Amino acid sequence: MTNTALPRIGILGGMGPLASAEFVVKLVQATPASCDQQHFPTTLDSSPQIPDRPASIYRGGPDPMPAMTEVIRRLEAAGCALIAMPCNTVHHWYDALAAQTTLPIVHIADAVAARLRVQVPGARRVGVLGGAVTSDMGVYSRRLGDAWEWIYASDHSLQTMVLPAIAAVKAGDLATGRRLFLQAVQEMLEHRPDAIVLGCTEIPVVLTQADVAVPVIDSTEALALHTVATARAMHTADRT
Amino acid sequence: MTNTALPRIGILGGMGPLASAEFVVKLVQATPASCDQQHFPTTLDSSPQIPDRPASIYRGGPDPMPAMTEVIRRLEAAGCALIAMPCNTVHHWYDALAAQTTLPIVHIADAVAARLRVQVPGARRVGVLGGAVTSDMGVYSRRLGDAWEWIYASDHSLQTMVLPAIAAVKAGDLATGRRLFLQAVQEMLEHRPDAIVLGCTEIPVVLTQADVAVPVIDSTEALALHTVATARAMHTADRT
Repeated sequence: MTNTALPRIGILGGMGPLASAEFVVKLVQATPASCDQQHFPTTLDSSPQIPDRPASIYRGGPDPMPAMTEVIRRLEAAGCALIAMPCNTVHHWYDALAAQTTLPIVHIADAVAARLRVQVPGARRVGVLGGAVTSDMGVYSRRLGDAWEWIYASDHSLQTMVLPAIAAVKAGDLATGRRLFLQAVQEMLEHRPDAIVLGCTEIPVVLTQADVAVPVIDSTEALALHTVATARAMHTADRT
Repeated sequence: MTNTALPRIGILGGMGPLASAEFVVKLVQATPASCDQQHFPTTLDSSPQIPDRPASIYRGGPDPMPAMTEVIRRLEAAGCALIAMPCNTVHHWYDALAAQTTLPIVHIADAVAARLRVQVPGARRVGVLGGAVTSDMGVYSRRLGDAWEWIYASDHSLQTMVLPAIAAVKAGDLATGRRLFLQAVQEMLEHRPDAIVLGCTEIPVVLTQADVAVPVIDSTEALALHTVATARAMHTADRT
């Protein structure tokens, strides 16, 4: 089959809404294009009413799966050819979501691994700064095994710095979010990581490489690059 | 009818893709919310393959209406309750598009007028820095009449500064885009406007109030604020 139309990228978004919006910006910036028409058609389905993910795991809150499955159904109906989820936590449900659709879903840990290999080829100890689900459920180690030694934030850091920082960014209080994330980075640096993954898409909203003394992998940017690479590969395959 | 669900905001986007992505960021920032769940569900349908709008008017290129109508159909199918179009040029087709759907479409000129009244209440002469279609077809004057005296960029400024600047931003060359837009602003200031509307959503990607000596209305931000206000009014009306 010859198909020269670019594949439509679908985004299961809204967790949180600002991180999803910044992801779309990074997706556009990650695309080599000299005019509008060379950019991938994209559908962002931002559905912030999806039940709180940590609450469903830790506090018996409602299951987010039905609402997330609805989003996937809408992305399929919109003609999407692949799906990206700019939220680390939601990758706890990756296998369950992938089972709901024939569309490929780009995994954020694969995206981060690809960046690690390019940016910090010698890295062995890698810190993952992320939400409670990401560390407790081993979103990175479960997908990537022991290719790297994963370091997660301590419980103290999670409770007093990372989680309040995530909540602050979601509430639009970027200054507080930034201050608390910087403290969590300092604590993580005591474990001497070779690199730190900003493993919650709320973090790169307020923190950049310039703030951290070791190489930083922005999981949002990594996902954008990997999504574009995947879409380009699908397009090339379609044309041959 | 009692309906406490927030209305879904639909975005006819991709013209250009970066401007649309920045619009989603501004939409989130314009929403008063303290957690994910208080944000409006949003569907961005970014369809950069929509035929070139100026080309269709000036050079007999393909009509963009069928592709734009398809986007509207997808936004309806996704459950959107209102539509915003973060592109000034496309408002040349506003009446034709509005006739295609029962959903309200927020008009970018109404959004700018609302900001002008709040930010520069005494303004009479208003410069509109925008693409050829926006000035030639009077996107602002046609909608808003003579409530303000509209000043558009000269042909010379359009051809040598504004249009090359728009193309540069669309191609990701932000530095060139910024330099040329700044030149166009200087030329417009010679006409002594009381305010300048950044009347192409590519402009605020590289230019801010800090760059301009008179009050600036960012049409992207204005559209975000007006869209949120419209969605909130619909939600309140649904609940009473």
